[in-house]
Amino acid sequence: MTTTYFDKLRAASRARESLLCIGLDPDPKVIPGGLEGAVNFCRTLIDVTADLACCYKPNAAFWEQYGPRGWEGLLTVRQSVPPDIPLLFDCKRADVPNTMAAYASAVFEVMDFDAATIHAYHGADSLAAFTEYASRGIYVVCHTSNSGRADLQHLRSGEQPLYLAVAELAMRSSNNGNTGVVMGATAPTEAAAVRAAFPGLPFLLPGIGRQGGDVEAAVRAAFTSDPASCLVAVAGAILYADDPRSAAIAWRDCIRRVAGQMLVGEEPARPTKRATAAPPACGSA
Amino acid sequence: MTTTYFDKLRAASRARESLLCIGLDPDPKVIPGGLEGAVNFCRTLIDVTADLACCYKPNAAFWEQYGPRGWEGLLTVRQSVPPDIPLLFDCKRADVPNTMAAYASAVFEVMDFDAATIHAYHGADSLAAFTEYASRGIYVVCHTSNSGRADLQHLRSGEQPLYLAVAELAMRSSNNGNTGVVMGATAPTEAAAVRAAFPGLPFLLPGIGRQGGDVEAAVRAAFTSDPASCLVAVAGAILYADDPRSAAIAWRDCIRRVAGQMLVGEEPARPTKRATAAPPACGSA
Repeated sequence: MTTTYFDKLRAASRARESLLCIGLDPDPKVIPGGLEGAVNFCRTLIDVTADLACCYKPNAAFWEQYGPRGWEGLLTVRQSVPPDIPLLFDCKRADVPNTMAAYASAVFEVMDFDAATIHAYHGADSLAAFTEYASRGIYVVCHTSNSGRADLQHLRSGEQPLYLAVAELAMRSSNNGNTGVVMGATAPTEAAAVRAAFPGLPFLLPGIGRQGGDVEAAVRAAFTSDPASCLVAVAGAILYADDPRSAAIAWRDCIRRVAGQMLVGEEPARPTKRATAAPPACGSA
Repeated sequence: MTTTYFDKLRAASRARESLLCIGLDPDPKVIPGGLEGAVNFCRTLIDVTADLACCYKPNAAFWEQYGPRGWEGLLTVRQSVPPDIPLLFDCKRADVPNTMAAYASAVFEVMDFDAATIHAYHGADSLAAFTEYASRGIYVVCHTSNSGRADLQHLRSGEQPLYLAVAELAMRSSNNGNTGVVMGATAPTEAAAVRAAFPGLPFLLPGIGRQGGDVEAAVRAAFTSDPASCLVAVAGAILYADDPRSAAIAWRDCIRRVAGQMLVGEEPARPTKRATAAPPACGSA
């Protein structure tokens, strides 16, 4: 049987007892030395966090900023990632089926990433160009962490908001269980609604840290006993912390604590409503 | 006053009496010689069509297939494009505002394209990262040429389908008139509905040629007296024609004939229902 991206993610998560995904999003305004500086910065970061993160997630935008050579830099960075840790390319691709096949070839064959983020607006035939790679994974963008999400994602069609229709389409498009959804951690209510409708759908939860997502509420909404159910992405709050390793430990521990309480049926240590983006036990970044 | 992408497009269109946009989408399965072959192929194509096309539109997917060096190849190709012809990067970017700012910097500053295609799913704050470049242009993906479009784009919210809500958001996001929409040419009825609601919104019409779009019906739905109202994209049917220049002439003439009939109020030469994707007078590709 094919080992899938989500199998690889689960194994990496169990080996590290971690649900933490670290975003590799270099900012040329913060990291000196141009592309070489960004590459060295990310390689060092991976070296000090490879026992803490179960996934690394480079966002295409931050590498494209460096011009054509940015992609080569990204391929250099990936050499630092231990082979058992999956690499998720946050590229949010979306086009007609023929063009999506070219994107999928670029992402899964040429660049050899384990998974990618995708937009569903083009519909099922477009998603199929990615999901046909049964051993790779996709996360369909469902509900996002920015405030503009209300403009379209909250439009109601019949009984349900658009983001639930997108989750349904993602679920329907799954091949060999290789499809999840992106659920912004700033909106745990909507994450809980999608979780209630689709108990087995893997979630990627961005928006933690600098975007103000409530990590405790997000994990409570997303996590089931499956390690792939709740992949929590943190970028800037680890990358640009004074001590990235300590920040990564704090975030891993915070996420693990909440998930652990859920597994043993414990009540949270403090009321959920008081939880903040980065409680003291969850990193100071 | 700032000269915008759409001003540049109008000037290039008037100078050539053409509404034809040629897609630069190299297919490694068709063009031999790897990236170098693709670059030479596209440069030759531009040389023989630069008096016929008012815009060139490379799709990111087809260049990313060539790996990290694909982007460098694309920058080499652009050197062949005469400076008065705008370059539209068909990249369909979409992410949260902070990340969209990085994409916009990559597309408009680093790569220096005149315009780009964008997805609206993240909402107005995300589009703003692109539209704030007042002199550049965007086309928001509104209604696409593939059959999967019905899955989400046709969902009805209140009185209107989702694609009309997207067109409304695009219109609202326009800064200095720098925003248009992508309307698949395979669906002239929906193009006509968006044109009726938004008379001034520029359209990019892909899906002509190999995707079976009905060029006559699409132009009739989209064209107003404004040359920017109806930019018709053709890729494979010109790129892979036996004689690309002859094919480009035939497509330009066909589009021009329909637009010309509309300007003088003529009836079409044949009933619209009998029009096909590539009528004899519209290229044999």
